[in-house]
Amino acid sequence: MSATLVEIVKASNLKLKPEDDKLGFGRYFTDHMLVMDYSIETGWTGPRITPYEPIALDPAAVIFHYGQTAFEGMKAYRTEDNRILLFRPEKNFSRLNASSERLSMPPINEEEVLEYVKQLISVEKDWVPTSKGTSLYIRPFIIATESFLGLAASKQYKLVVILSPVGSYYTNGIQPVNIKVEEHYTRAVRGGTGMAKTAGNYCATFNAQTKAINEGFSQVLWLDAIEKKYVEEVGTSNVFFKINGEVHTPELSGSILPGITRMSVIEMLRSWGIPVSERRISIEEIYQSYEEGLLEEVFSTGTAAVISPIGELEWQGRKIVINNKSIGAVSEKLYDTLTGIQTGKIADTFNWTTEVN
Amino acid sequence: MSATLVEIVKASNLKLKPEDDKLGFGRYFTDHMLVMDYSIETGWTGPRITPYEPIALDPAAVIFHYGQTAFEGMKAYRTEDNRILLFRPEKNFSRLNASSERLSMPPINEEEVLEYVKQLISVEKDWVPTSKGTSLYIRPFIIATESFLGLAASKQYKLVVILSPVGSYYTNGIQPVNIKVEEHYTRAVRGGTGMAKTAGNYCATFNAQTKAINEGFSQVLWLDAIEKKYVEEVGTSNVFFKINGEVHTPELSGSILPGITRMSVIEMLRSWGIPVSERRISIEEIYQSYEEGLLEEVFSTGTAAVISPIGELEWQGRKIVINNKSIGAVSEKLYDTLTGIQTGKIADTFNWTTEVN
Repeated sequence: MSATLVEIVKASNLKLKPEDDKLGFGRYFTDHMLVMDYSIETGWTGPRITPYEPIALDPAAVIFHYGQTAFEGMKAYRTEDNRILLFRPEKNFSRLNASSERLSMPPINEEEVLEYVKQLISVEKDWVPTSKGTSLYIRPFIIATESFLGLAASKQYKLVVILSPVGSYYTNGIQPVNIKVEEHYTRAVRGGTGMAKTAGNYCATFNAQTKAINEGFSQVLWLDAIEKKYVEEVGTSNVFFKINGEVHTPELSGSILPGITRMSVIEMLRSWGIPVSERRISIEEIYQSYEEGLLEEVFSTGTAAVISPIGELEWQGRKIVINNKSIGAVSEKLYDTLTGIQTGKIADTFNWTTEVN
Repeated sequence: MSATLVEIVKASNLKLKPEDDKLGFGRYFTDHMLVMDYSIETGWTGPRITPYEPIALDPAAVIFHYGQTAFEGMKAYRTEDNRILLFRPEKNFSRLNASSERLSMPPINEEEVLEYVKQLISVEKDWVPTSKGTSLYIRPFIIATESFLGLAASKQYKLVVILSPVGSYYTNGIQPVNIKVEEHYTRAVRGGTGMAKTAGNYCATFNAQTKAINEGFSQVLWLDAIEKKYVEEVGTSNVFFKINGEVHTPELSGSILPGITRMSVIEMLRSWGIPVSERRISIEEIYQSYEEGLLEEVFSTGTAAVISPIGELEWQGRKIVINNKSIGAVSEKLYDTLTGIQTGKIADTFNWTTEVN
């Protein structure tokens, strides 16, 4: 298999592109998509760019019944000098393969698929929005397509990559959010699929999320499912605590998604000489550090918001306010530096960005 | 909405029906399917029987990314006097709604959808196979179809019901199976989705299942994810232990699927005067009862096999053989009575069957 696409079928009619301030998240999709197919006999074949169009699957396709699937999320950013940058995309494709392994799905050739995705973005380069904070969201996903209701891994899969121009996450500036510690529902447990980016992990969180929003919170903080004691994630983001000058984040225990922004934040903080520890962190400890006046900043990290400062936490009816509900200095510096590197405004001394030609 | 179908579109070409001894499980599908659509504005509308055909979905459909979906499995049996019977189908549609609630999906009208399914089976009545042990497997499933990558419950869904003629589970007579207690992977945890029949629970088990099969076992026994101590399920079936004249099965803790065969076995045993307790059962206790010579029978229950006797268990390298690897008297009586009722050979004193006209 060569890294040259075998086929590009152009859409005959191009869509009207929405205004940058109307984009929102994940509502609009570009004119084309990337598709590849896998069968156990041939491996991955037929990489092609096609018009963005419905996927037709047999009603007995494994994805509909047993949910074998994995996905990724990443962004392409337009620089002021009109280049298009990707941020550590090789990490996304490496994680996609890690997810696939947990779901009994075949690996892709990471380098080749990344090349195809660059070609897709190149075809769709006019879709990369220009306003501050906007980007082209990239969603690769693999679905199990064999028509078979037996309980076994599918022998056929489809990889699809779609692109969606997305608006600024912070249209009104960065506002620290209020988060509720979830006591009833759980997101993941050791031995399960929590470390994989797979569909079933996400629908499982909607009930808790809706309940939190109805109670006036913007998201939930997940505790571990075993002892309901240790902090795991916030919504679908990783979480960090700055306590007495040091930054702490839950260790990758198997039930936590290994975020690429998480990884980058850790590397960046250490490059600044700020110590970071990855370890088990109990919610008790967070509250105690607050009582002692040592809890300086709390923030979550993810592809969508990059850095999202947390201004309030509520656990068992006890509310604590962090940094006077303002973004902390370290959170802000992380946000500015990461988004600066992503958009080419700051020199990429980490060598994290990749240009799309 | 009336319980009369608004539309039946007949397939123009009917498929060749496979021989009963070639059926297997979930490989062949009938000529038609039932479809309904939901939108948040209109509720469930447009129940229709259409030719069995691919489902075309936008690549951004929620099912592909966040996995909102629930399904059911049930069977239609042909009696010797050529009637078609369903076994407690109302329990399946009630469980489908329970699953949907956990997945933030809208409920269906259980009675109406059951009527539609009966009409579908009536259209496909020639597909209900006749040989001993065969049946027509019924697979209702709901998938989230809104084209949106935001993390929120879909505003659109599709209910589809497909039918698959399936072969006898026991073509060579009932053979007790050997089961390995799974130590690494977990199936579900409290606060998660274990009690729901949803796709993500199933793909999560494939790795463990493959490993067990490669080691010469036919399935795994799942322990609870918290203490790795209490018995939960076997594969995707509920599990029962007959110890010193009494039958024990794990209680419905939230991480266990409330099986309809499980429910029926409990009711049937009690009607026979055999005590059944639903409670937490540790794997230690099972091994101890074996050491004491009190472990009389072990079997799993589910729609596919009805009753599947377990002849060997292996846990931490310790193998125990149950009832000399033969099916036990109670397991056999349960199997004969349940399948007898399902196929109309035994009087249905429980009023469990429903005839399709």
